[in-house]
Amino acid sequence: MRIYDIIKKKRDGEELSTGEINYFVHDYTNGNIPDYQISALLMAIFLNKMNKRETLDLTKAMVNSGDTVDLSNIDGIKVDKHSTGGVGDTTTIVLGPMIAACGVPFVKMSGRGLGHTGGTLDKLESIKDFKVELSTEEFIQNSNKIKISLCSQTANITPADKKFYALRDVTATVENLSLIASSIMSKKLAIGSDAIILDVKVGSGAFMKNIDDAIVLAKEMVEIGIGYGRETIALVTNMDEPLGNAVGNALEIKEAIATLQGQGPEDLYELCLELGSRLLVLSKRVEDEKEGRTLLEEKVESGAAYEKLLELVKYQGGDVKFIKNPELLPSAKYILEVKSDSEGYVKSLNAEEVGKVALSLGAGRETMDSIIDLSAGLVLNKKIDDKVNIGDTLAYIHCNQLEKGKEAKEKIKELYVIGNKNTKAKKLVYGIVSKEGTELF
Amino acid sequence: MRIYDIIKKKRDGEELSTGEINYFVHDYTNGNIPDYQISALLMAIFLNKMNKRETLDLTKAMVNSGDTVDLSNIDGIKVDKHSTGGVGDTTTIVLGPMIAACGVPFVKMSGRGLGHTGGTLDKLESIKDFKVELSTEEFIQNSNKIKISLCSQTANITPADKKFYALRDVTATVENLSLIASSIMSKKLAIGSDAIILDVKVGSGAFMKNIDDAIVLAKEMVEIGIGYGRETIALVTNMDEPLGNAVGNALEIKEAIATLQGQGPEDLYELCLELGSRLLVLSKRVEDEKEGRTLLEEKVESGAAYEKLLELVKYQGGDVKFIKNPELLPSAKYILEVKSDSEGYVKSLNAEEVGKVALSLGAGRETMDSIIDLSAGLVLNKKIDDKVNIGDTLAYIHCNQLEKGKEAKEKIKELYVIGNKNTKAKKLVYGIVSKEGTELF
Repeated sequence: MRIYDIIKKKRDGEELSTGEINYFVHDYTNGNIPDYQISALLMAIFLNKMNKRETLDLTKAMVNSGDTVDLSNIDGIKVDKHSTGGVGDTTTIVLGPMIAACGVPFVKMSGRGLGHTGGTLDKLESIKDFKVELSTEEFIQNSNKIKISLCSQTANITPADKKFYALRDVTATVENLSLIASSIMSKKLAIGSDAIILDVKVGSGAFMKNIDDAIVLAKEMVEIGIGYGRETIALVTNMDEPLGNAVGNALEIKEAIATLQGQGPEDLYELCLELGSRLLVLSKRVEDEKEGRTLLEEKVESGAAYEKLLELVKYQGGDVKFIKNPELLPSAKYILEVKSDSEGYVKSLNAEEVGKVALSLGAGRETMDSIIDLSAGLVLNKKIDDKVNIGDTLAYIHCNQLEKGKEAKEKIKELYVIGNKNTKAKKLVYGIVSKEGTELF
Repeated sequence: MRIYDIIKKKRDGEELSTGEINYFVHDYTNGNIPDYQISALLMAIFLNKMNKRETLDLTKAMVNSGDTVDLSNIDGIKVDKHSTGGVGDTTTIVLGPMIAACGVPFVKMSGRGLGHTGGTLDKLESIKDFKVELSTEEFIQNSNKIKISLCSQTANITPADKKFYALRDVTATVENLSLIASSIMSKKLAIGSDAIILDVKVGSGAFMKNIDDAIVLAKEMVEIGIGYGRETIALVTNMDEPLGNAVGNALEIKEAIATLQGQGPEDLYELCLELGSRLLVLSKRVEDEKEGRTLLEEKVESGAAYEKLLELVKYQGGDVKFIKNPELLPSAKYILEVKSDSEGYVKSLNAEEVGKVALSLGAGRETMDSIIDLSAGLVLNKKIDDKVNIGDTLAYIHCNQLEKGKEAKEKIKELYVIGNKNTKAKKLVYGIVSKEGTELF
């Protein structure tokens, strides 16, 4: 088999065989095929596309390029959740304890990446001594004992994806459905959960800018998951503005704690109920979503979900004092108030731009070497459709460098578009994609 | 300017600006852009194409990537000829002296490349002491004194093309009109001739397999030439079988000598008259092609064209004894006769396959390090449409390794397809492309 012939075949719009896909994934990962041939192939794939069979084969080849994590020693039907990425998305840290409190094992291994704010791992590291690096044995043990474990991926999960992604990133071949879907799903499938819920974000703060594209991506991923033999569904959800109010690592942990205590932002809690009720159905814990929702609400109201977070922190070496007294979490030197000088309703608040402001304050990573300022970020006081009067506080900037904070303040003020009431109320969940098909709400 | 944005633009089917094209050609040539980004760009160009403006800009950027050769010190209207490559194509060595004998400067710098047989430079090196490396000063001096000079390109002609071609060759991005046309034309345009005739080959032994494709390529190149301000025309000619009878370096030199003495194969001579008569019109030496043809025939019949070859050899340090006594040229140890065991007419003789047989005998280069056996090759005794009886000699194999010769003999026998007379007689020239348009014959 020659890589030249494979490039030529895809260039000419032909379908690649399973053997050909296995060959190029394997030999590129091993360093036997140079970057410059794979980048030409990636562009050919980008422009001529892969069909569903090829995409599933690509995903499998990526899974098989490294270690897979066997979770069969964890009792019960294990569930996992993945978001395609948004701004202020604290869902995992709220949803995980809620699900675990229902007795269903919530098992999640995350990677670290670039982004406006840190990922779940970075956020958890705001909690003193919280250990995100677990051995597979610890991961399994914890999952059996307390039904929840959140840790970093082992180094050798889907090494192919790491190499391919790095190359796509510099050759303008990221935004292809098959390549995106296989990249995301290979990392999920390498971890042996039984059921997966995908939160496909759409809007100004998401990779997917319109609902149609998001649904196509959701379908592609759901089909891969099912093709791989895993229960998989996807919700397509709103990312036109940040989720919840907090954007920033320690700030989001505080918000997660509040939400588990029944005092968090409505949209964040509602999304956890939407995702969670479906996960409980997938894991056969409940008969239908309504029952799931009721059970989840009970777990929050009774304090069981919050207790589960304390347990998680304790089992992963963290100091629960920081959860019980969130004011001990890293906090910024300065808090600047952003006030409105106009009145009306919040018409829009571009989530990606808000994310960039958080990044400018140090909350995220611009390069893999960036050091995150865990205390920096912002808290929104007004969100889309909220009524605003002159002098109302729109948001709070948390920063350690006053100059940057002042710049952020100006920028955030600009981002709040205030005017007449929007004619259509915003929606949190647009639809669901499952093996039964696509349902739009 | 960022290469990422340029890749993305072409990926999305947009037109690249002159500045963007200059940037990536310049910075790739200088090593400031890595191969893996350019190969992605090349695939995007391959699939989304370049328009005429972009192709002309690409050509100009390649010309400007290295040295250009100023020939303004050569008197008269200087002409150059380029073939897109075929098998047994000895045209330059016949046409050059014919044109020079008419007093028109024929100036040609050739590159070396891979191929079934050597290029013009390798063929000329069959002549003892013939020097293909001339300084620009020598090149100009000779062109002024004897109206002809054939030499190798200086090292720094279109370095961009060398880098791009090497990358295209391993990334399945060779066969794109804009990339082919700009590669060929940049090398021609870097040398300051006034008029260029392109011999675009079509058929089994050519890069272009059908006439329509060949015409499109011819148009693309003619437009580049004219866009660059040079008189440029193209003939689209037959390469369904090898041109002339000889395939191999010294064998082709012998054939060139015979042709200049009026005793060469008809098709080779006829092609030289077709190309040459148009070159004489372009150089304003004659009024029309008919006058050009008559003049060229005179120069061959009078011996003036042959004398010009002797002069060329002498001026470039070669020993004219080898021209006067061609039996002194490198000759193979064995000559094997290929005899027909069927009767009828030669229906076809795949030129590319004949070329591969010559290559297997050592006549060409498989890699840039291959050493050419100047004496090896074959001489065809029967060509398409010729009548064949059982026992007739089809061809002669010239070889220095008997085993390889025997294999070649079997292979050549298979390549001769003998059967009923073809219903259509073969054609040598299919059409002409010039600024006046395309004319099919």
